[in-house]
Amino acid sequence: MNFTLTILGTASAMPMVDRFQSAQVLSVHGRFFLIDCGEGCQKQLIRCHVPLQRIDALFLSHIHGDHLFGLFPLLSTLGMLKRNAPLDIYAPVSFGPILKFFLSYYGQGVDFEIRHHPLSMKEPMTVFETKSLEIKAFPLNHKIETFGFLFEEKEPRMNVRKEKIGEYGLSVEEIGRIKNGEDLVREGIAVPNRELAYKPYEPRSYAYCSDTAPFPQLPVWVKGVNLLYHEATYTEEFASQAAERYHSTAAQAARCALDAGVGKLVVGHYSSRCRDIRAIEEECRKVFPASFAASDGEVFDIPLSENFSL
Amino acid sequence: MNFTLTILGTASAMPMVDRFQSAQVLSVHGRFFLIDCGEGCQKQLIRCHVPLQRIDALFLSHIHGDHLFGLFPLLSTLGMLKRNAPLDIYAPVSFGPILKFFLSYYGQGVDFEIRHHPLSMKEPMTVFETKSLEIKAFPLNHKIETFGFLFEEKEPRMNVRKEKIGEYGLSVEEIGRIKNGEDLVREGIAVPNRELAYKPYEPRSYAYCSDTAPFPQLPVWVKGVNLLYHEATYTEEFASQAAERYHSTAAQAARCALDAGVGKLVVGHYSSRCRDIRAIEEECRKVFPASFAASDGEVFDIPLSENFSL
Repeated sequence: MNFTLTILGTASAMPMVDRFQSAQVLSVHGRFFLIDCGEGCQKQLIRCHVPLQRIDALFLSHIHGDHLFGLFPLLSTLGMLKRNAPLDIYAPVSFGPILKFFLSYYGQGVDFEIRHHPLSMKEPMTVFETKSLEIKAFPLNHKIETFGFLFEEKEPRMNVRKEKIGEYGLSVEEIGRIKNGEDLVREGIAVPNRELAYKPYEPRSYAYCSDTAPFPQLPVWVKGVNLLYHEATYTEEFASQAAERYHSTAAQAARCALDAGVGKLVVGHYSSRCRDIRAIEEECRKVFPASFAASDGEVFDIPLSENFSL
Repeated sequence: MNFTLTILGTASAMPMVDRFQSAQVLSVHGRFFLIDCGEGCQKQLIRCHVPLQRIDALFLSHIHGDHLFGLFPLLSTLGMLKRNAPLDIYAPVSFGPILKFFLSYYGQGVDFEIRHHPLSMKEPMTVFETKSLEIKAFPLNHKIETFGFLFEEKEPRMNVRKEKIGEYGLSVEEIGRIKNGEDLVREGIAVPNRELAYKPYEPRSYAYCSDTAPFPQLPVWVKGVNLLYHEATYTEEFASQAAERYHSTAAQAARCALDAGVGKLVVGHYSSRCRDIRAIEEECRKVFPASFAASDGEVFDIPLSENFSL
């Protein structure tokens, strides 16, 4: 039941010798979701022990090169590795012709299906769903069409308290209904569900927001997530440059975390002008103390908060 | 008067965590020639202190991704760095639509001219020439159209022996003619040029051959170069795989070096199946002792053999 974020790259557009560009992997319940795919992503995946073959889907925020140029090499490698499983790519509409170009020129040997799910929405919208997980995309505020992603565990089924089974002589059907959250009715009287059962764990959530300038809806859309990744391209010193380029400063990223009431903020996508990431972290922490300036290869785990009793 | 090869990447198609893919820089007389451009090339250029801005031209052997996927990121970066100088790219005809795609989708901000010189020849042909340097392209024997490159210093002008100036009372015009290799004629008798002048240094040369299976003309075309880079994707153990994929084994690369009578052989483009590059080097040295299995970042300098007197 893992829920683990691995940061593969933290540089923004200008290449740096000691940082890779935007890419990360969220591993949820053994699935691997790749989020953005900057140059060198496949090398970082190998370095961070993410099995290339097992990537379930790719979530591409936008088509700027520093978020995408690692994709052609990765797809070529997956072809060489004889991947069979289809690969779902959730990406802006503008990604369509880029994929088409790749398949025309480098598609030989890429024998698995690549399914592009074009994103186009004004409000958060579910784009992926399983029994236990839901992934939403939502628009960001960047120079070109860009999307953020929200990964949420669904509410788990309730666990029935063992002692209540004997106490009420619960039948298999009754246990099933209680697990689904229903109350028990005995002799016309309702026994509330919360007396009979408990939630085994709190659902976990992660939101990815890069690249974006601040905008009012964003903290609402990522409200209360356990972990928020928000770009922090610049320190406040470069606030005008951030505004001009539709990026955020560290303080703005932290403000979003504060307004959204998140558990923890992770920032990255550092400009080559802001090489001292401790300064970025400090700027964040003045606004939102639980802030962390990520380094390449860093892992942020969201542990399960288990409620064995309540 | 430098003539220096820097190896940026030595991996072949399958990505490796500890090697970058094919790319190298030949620096001649202060010019920087980039040869192939695998993923991560720009990061390696920075790491090896090659000034990105000062790359004079790119020589692209073929369009396979492991030789090319670093180019889009590099061109984007040169755009961000506000390069003005045109960039010449010597590349197969098949590179044309790839460049066109790049410029359509990522050309905004790339304000310098990119001049594609399409390669198409059956025999070595001069593609670049200055007063002191000549670069030839020649076909290799790979699955798709692929070219090797030969970088040759031209014969230098002769240096006039100081003592001969007084001895013969040489005029400025006579000195000029002697520097151009002419004999001196005095009283109807020719004084041979070699008595009056000497070659200040031996011209240096470098040949790049990747990717290719062996073929008879190759040692002829790279005859006597000071430094030969030849791919050695496999050890002999994988000879059938090498043949099937139009690649060379270490022994075959060394055989080419031997037949061509080169000064030194450098090999690279290692398969992920041949991780022990000492084994590759040993296999080469059994055939051609002056062989070196390159590592990423390694520098091979061809020093000037100065003839101050003869």
